[in-house]
Amino acid sequence: MASEKRLEVVTCTAPVNIAVIKYWGKRDEELILPINSSLSVTLHQDQLKTTTTAAISRDFTEDRIWLNGREEDMGQPRLQACLREIRRLARKRGSDGHEDPLPLSLSYKVHVASVNNFPTAAGLASSAAGYACLAYALARVYGVESDLSEVARRGSGSACRSLYGGFVEWQMGERADGKDSIARQLAPESHWPELRVLILVVSTEKKPTGSTAGMQTSVETSALLRFRAEALVPARMAEMTRCVRERDFQAFGQLTMKDSNQFHATCMDTFPPISYLNDTSQRIIHLVHCFNAHHGQTKVAYTFDAGANAVIFTLDDTVAEFVAAVRHSFPPELNGDKFLKGLPVEPVPLSDELKAALGTDPTPGGIKYIIATQVGPGPQVLDDPGAHLLGPDGLPKAAA
Amino acid sequence: MASEKRLEVVTCTAPVNIAVIKYWGKRDEELILPINSSLSVTLHQDQLKTTTTAAISRDFTEDRIWLNGREEDMGQPRLQACLREIRRLARKRGSDGHEDPLPLSLSYKVHVASVNNFPTAAGLASSAAGYACLAYALARVYGVESDLSEVARRGSGSACRSLYGGFVEWQMGERADGKDSIARQLAPESHWPELRVLILVVSTEKKPTGSTAGMQTSVETSALLRFRAEALVPARMAEMTRCVRERDFQAFGQLTMKDSNQFHATCMDTFPPISYLNDTSQRIIHLVHCFNAHHGQTKVAYTFDAGANAVIFTLDDTVAEFVAAVRHSFPPELNGDKFLKGLPVEPVPLSDELKAALGTDPTPGGIKYIIATQVGPGPQVLDDPGAHLLGPDGLPKAAA
Repeated sequence: MASEKRLEVVTCTAPVNIAVIKYWGKRDEELILPINSSLSVTLHQDQLKTTTTAAISRDFTEDRIWLNGREEDMGQPRLQACLREIRRLARKRGSDGHEDPLPLSLSYKVHVASVNNFPTAAGLASSAAGYACLAYALARVYGVESDLSEVARRGSGSACRSLYGGFVEWQMGERADGKDSIARQLAPESHWPELRVLILVVSTEKKPTGSTAGMQTSVETSALLRFRAEALVPARMAEMTRCVRERDFQAFGQLTMKDSNQFHATCMDTFPPISYLNDTSQRIIHLVHCFNAHHGQTKVAYTFDAGANAVIFTLDDTVAEFVAAVRHSFPPELNGDKFLKGLPVEPVPLSDELKAALGTDPTPGGIKYIIATQVGPGPQVLDDPGAHLLGPDGLPKAAA
Repeated sequence: MASEKRLEVVTCTAPVNIAVIKYWGKRDEELILPINSSLSVTLHQDQLKTTTTAAISRDFTEDRIWLNGREEDMGQPRLQACLREIRRLARKRGSDGHEDPLPLSLSYKVHVASVNNFPTAAGLASSAAGYACLAYALARVYGVESDLSEVARRGSGSACRSLYGGFVEWQMGERADGKDSIARQLAPESHWPELRVLILVVSTEKKPTGSTAGMQTSVETSALLRFRAEALVPARMAEMTRCVRERDFQAFGQLTMKDSNQFHATCMDTFPPISYLNDTSQRIIHLVHCFNAHHGQTKVAYTFDAGANAVIFTLDDTVAEFVAAVRHSFPPELNGDKFLKGLPVEPVPLSDELKAALGTDPTPGGIKYIIATQVGPGPQVLDDPGAHLLGPDGLPKAAA
């Protein structure tokens, strides 16, 4: 087909990341600069990923985007900010005396299509993976090779942390223009091979407060948030970095839980208050503390983002027993066979001692399902042309 | 009966108080000295009170106590601390060159009986009213006239605030011996006659973390609690005092809600975290903010202590509409006719606009019942001998 040659197309994937030192609050709403640094673990794309195809062509008459098969408004300020930023970087590259001439493609319009391999209904924050994938795909198609922190960040702050695999810090930076507010990898995914991640998807009816509006209200009203960001997070970043470097699970788990709790404390101190944790979330917290108390050490740790779902960190030797404890406390209601997704976990019996330690009455159906995963790599380029989400005409391929 | 003359007996009542600037955390566990000052509203005893009879007799061979008809161990450290303290004050009074000679009664053993007019199951903190009433009754029977803050405080910190009616502050004090950690009345109950209080008794299964253990863990682990106590509470005490003095409901309500939220935030920042609010509590919070948003002003305010029950402050002209809103959002499940206790509230219809503003799906049975009450006076002595809970033999009268 003649049109095929006129099309530059690239398809990438990007991961979800889970913060263990939380980002909550911007010092600059426009540039998306945070009031504190944060640190995250990148999850494996075998279980959770966004796939994005970007295509440019002189034949395109406008920038367009399709998310999960449905066309969205490319005029959204955050999408526009990403596009503007990537084109600025492409122009800079050309004018920097780089060997390539200023690419003609800069004037081309772009078509973007993006899908998640996990249901939005799961309540997992997909914007980080989405904007990281967008930044990565746009960079490839426009020939940009510089740091993409700013491009991704302008879409969604935490997206810059999804640009790398393994363990990632987002340095808050000090400059007013945000040039030093960048993500960097602390350790690759191979650094701590025993680490496992379980996502406990909690049943909820109501949609929680969006994080953009929520953190803005928190910055305006919570004195505890300001104190946390200024006085407490710097030492926590240093300690968490040490925990990761030394693979000190006890300290890693405890600080992860404490930082999640402190983030939710600042939400509660917001006015009007924000509450992301529901009764099931609280029961999961209780379960984890009972489990650890029974073992006399921190074998499992929880963290919660802006929603009721729990993300659990543990080591490979503890996964089976903890999953059995979850099944015991939250008996699957309907889909017993589909309760566990992702990495295989062998069923094990619970000891009577542990059952007694868990104590609380079971809550049937409180947890919809579990996704078992692990630490994973950063964004990937897919070489297989069959992976493209846009056809040779630059429009989404018909759903299979 | 001959034994009657050998018996000194007095019966008192004391009120429940609700903090609007919260007390959480001790700087001295033994003396029960707080890490910050607090401020409370005394509730009317027509709805909630403790009644305590104290009797002394040379015939008694040991100190004994009956709570709600059941004998308890008088050897409990906090009961012992109250008794020791009252006897010390009585001795001091005698030796201070007071006209009375050192009373013989000081060597007498005491019998105490105490009952609440509200079910313990309601989850309302009864220890403040209980220890205030004990201190007051013991003082009467032993002839002590000095400030009873320390006696009550040694039983339960917040009990010192139940020694006065109206609006009461508990000054944290600075001295190591606690002599300046005392309660004083800011304004009597007559100061703000329009103020109304609704207690929303929330359905719960589990017993929450006790406040003594909870606040100890908070002091040990929450950096946010320390910051709140040192850097934020002093200004809040001054502002709340102004709100009360000027009967500024808007500001009073907002600060009451903010301080409740901040207290629960420090509980969440405790490790392991403490959560007193359940999903129904969160829905009540949401309801109050929706109600106020609909009216464009703070007409209603919530506060929560160490449990899931909400205490609502509002003015007399808003009670009926708010109760209707609560009925709308939490339809009574069984006892529709017993849903409202205490002060009468006339049924009013809800406007369609307000119904739309409340929005959320109703939660049948989430609230068990409402107690409508108001600001009330401090402890009272009952002159009617028929009120005594102990008979002429010094033992509890048979239940009617």
